[in-house]
Amino acid sequence: MKNTKVSSVGERALISILSEIFKTSDGREKEQEGILIGAGSDDCAVLDLKGEDCLVVTTDMLHRTTDFPEEMTPWQIGWMSAAVNFSDIAAMGAEPTGLVMAIGMPVDTETAFVVSLAKGMQACAEFCGTAIIGGDLDTHAELTITGTALGRVKKSQLLLRRGARPGDLVCVTGYTGSAGVALEALQLRKPVSENILKALFEPVPRTKEARTLAESGAVTSMMDTSDGLAMSLYDLSRQSHVGFRIRESALPILKEVREFALDPNKLREFALYTGGDFELLITIDPQKIKKVQNICNLVVIGECTKYEAGIVLESPECKLITIEQRGYQQLKAKAVDRST
Amino acid sequence: MKNTKVSSVGERALISILSEIFKTSDGREKEQEGILIGAGSDDCAVLDLKGEDCLVVTTDMLHRTTDFPEEMTPWQIGWMSAAVNFSDIAAMGAEPTGLVMAIGMPVDTETAFVVSLAKGMQACAEFCGTAIIGGDLDTHAELTITGTALGRVKKSQLLLRRGARPGDLVCVTGYTGSAGVALEALQLRKPVSENILKALFEPVPRTKEARTLAESGAVTSMMDTSDGLAMSLYDLSRQSHVGFRIRESALPILKEVREFALDPNKLREFALYTGGDFELLITIDPQKIKKVQNICNLVVIGECTKYEAGIVLESPECKLITIEQRGYQQLKAKAVDRST
Repeated sequence: MKNTKVSSVGERALISILSEIFKTSDGREKEQEGILIGAGSDDCAVLDLKGEDCLVVTTDMLHRTTDFPEEMTPWQIGWMSAAVNFSDIAAMGAEPTGLVMAIGMPVDTETAFVVSLAKGMQACAEFCGTAIIGGDLDTHAELTITGTALGRVKKSQLLLRRGARPGDLVCVTGYTGSAGVALEALQLRKPVSENILKALFEPVPRTKEARTLAESGAVTSMMDTSDGLAMSLYDLSRQSHVGFRIRESALPILKEVREFALDPNKLREFALYTGGDFELLITIDPQKIKKVQNICNLVVIGECTKYEAGIVLESPECKLITIEQRGYQQLKAKAVDRST
Repeated sequence: MKNTKVSSVGERALISILSEIFKTSDGREKEQEGILIGAGSDDCAVLDLKGEDCLVVTTDMLHRTTDFPEEMTPWQIGWMSAAVNFSDIAAMGAEPTGLVMAIGMPVDTETAFVVSLAKGMQACAEFCGTAIIGGDLDTHAELTITGTALGRVKKSQLLLRRGARPGDLVCVTGYTGSAGVALEALQLRKPVSENILKALFEPVPRTKEARTLAESGAVTSMMDTSDGLAMSLYDLSRQSHVGFRIRESALPILKEVREFALDPNKLREFALYTGGDFELLITIDPQKIKKVQNICNLVVIGECTKYEAGIVLESPECKLITIEQRGYQQLKAKAVDRST
């Protein structure tokens, strides 16, 4: 490991290395301390609250140059900084109970900018039925925002990345690829609608859908798609030990995204390998799918298979293509890596 | 407010502005949602866990150039990043229950550096009887670490900045001014002992003392001294509506710090106006001080007075000097402001 740079290791591998360090005191001890799920395996860590509930917690660091396109308003930067955290809370099926925000900013930042930023954070927290409960202010060369969100959920309703079984149906909320198209349009200075830009600048945390899904008792595993649909499928696959067969024709894609992509290869690129959509990826017991479709807007995009069958995309012509393990990944990447 | 820069507003004033924004939905509503203490007034936010306990949460963002002197090892950077958060948990009298760590680092960071960093964090978490339960990895030009710590405490044992009454005794743990001397020594390239450097590089969170104090039922208010003793006295004063008379001769100061300072004015500067010590500042019911002194190492440095009497230092010659409201404050400040 000597002289190895983190850029050659990559985010997910580095998380594995660090998770091992954070486990050095033996597992039993931590269980006694009430840590149900620790670092590295899910969208949130999970603490036992000793009663019927558990607490979920997640943290996300965002930076001006890598995470907030120049075209974003300060209000949108605030909204997004909150939203990415609430999306992780949603991914566990939990109810958000608070958000703390650490903000590092240049000393010459205008107070009006910070006020707009705070209003955007507050608006997102209110949308999610909670509040900003604390924070830290700091000077920093580049605007840097780290949010940490808390949530609460009955242990019996907690949704994890593990739990999917072969035969379960794979579903997603919303649309895929919209944020990816928005980012590419900005980079190439191509025109796109407000609607598409909003998908990137003002992602909507699926907090309400998540609670409905958690209460339904029909969900076998769940996570968010912040790093792209393909990366999320790989994460679920690893944790649940299942494979996936995804039907390309079933992917929910906005008309404008299809038109922007022009050809099927490029469209596949947007739909599977770009991040920033913050939708939920859900596996559901097929016996209960009707019930779920009555209470929550989602789309069935495929089914879980045996792990050994891998993660494949079935084209409209019934051709099977392996879905690659790539998408938005930190450390490996430059600023633009959300688009490929 | 238009065109005002945050540098001319300062950290504490900006916190007040933001706290108002985060209160826009009315207070009652938040109470229903279980937020006992929100943004801006204490070391931690406090959430109601609905039973006899509450949850405390704090977040702190640290940067390579402003918070970690070059001489620090990666292990020490990790330790300190965890310690500053656990110190806030201690300030509420709570038991730490977990820490999440968001780390932004340059892509060319060596993996060995990150491993040492993680080991330092883990060592501090273990010292505090808890664990690193999650995090986020991110690329960033400058090493940036945001920790968020959680703690748990019975509502009846929760210690706040408000609660001190005239006549209460003022106490501190450990020594004051050591970290300030260490920083100045580094800046002026003067020699100091390992002991003094460790005060700056490896602050010890007073987690155990805090629990003893919370259980004693004798403490009327508490906070940590991370921004310097003077700033902490002002914060307690504002929240508790009391003044303070501090006896200069009673301040616990290491012999080496006295020798380094050379003259009384400079010594006062270190003892009152430099941050980084992470000790506890405590007010105690005078009827119960003996009991507390039997179970916890602390020093009585003065007493609470009426608010109108202000915050004053009584010199060995019984002269009264006003303690100024200054110390370590973000946003107002350049990298070196810990020392003055």
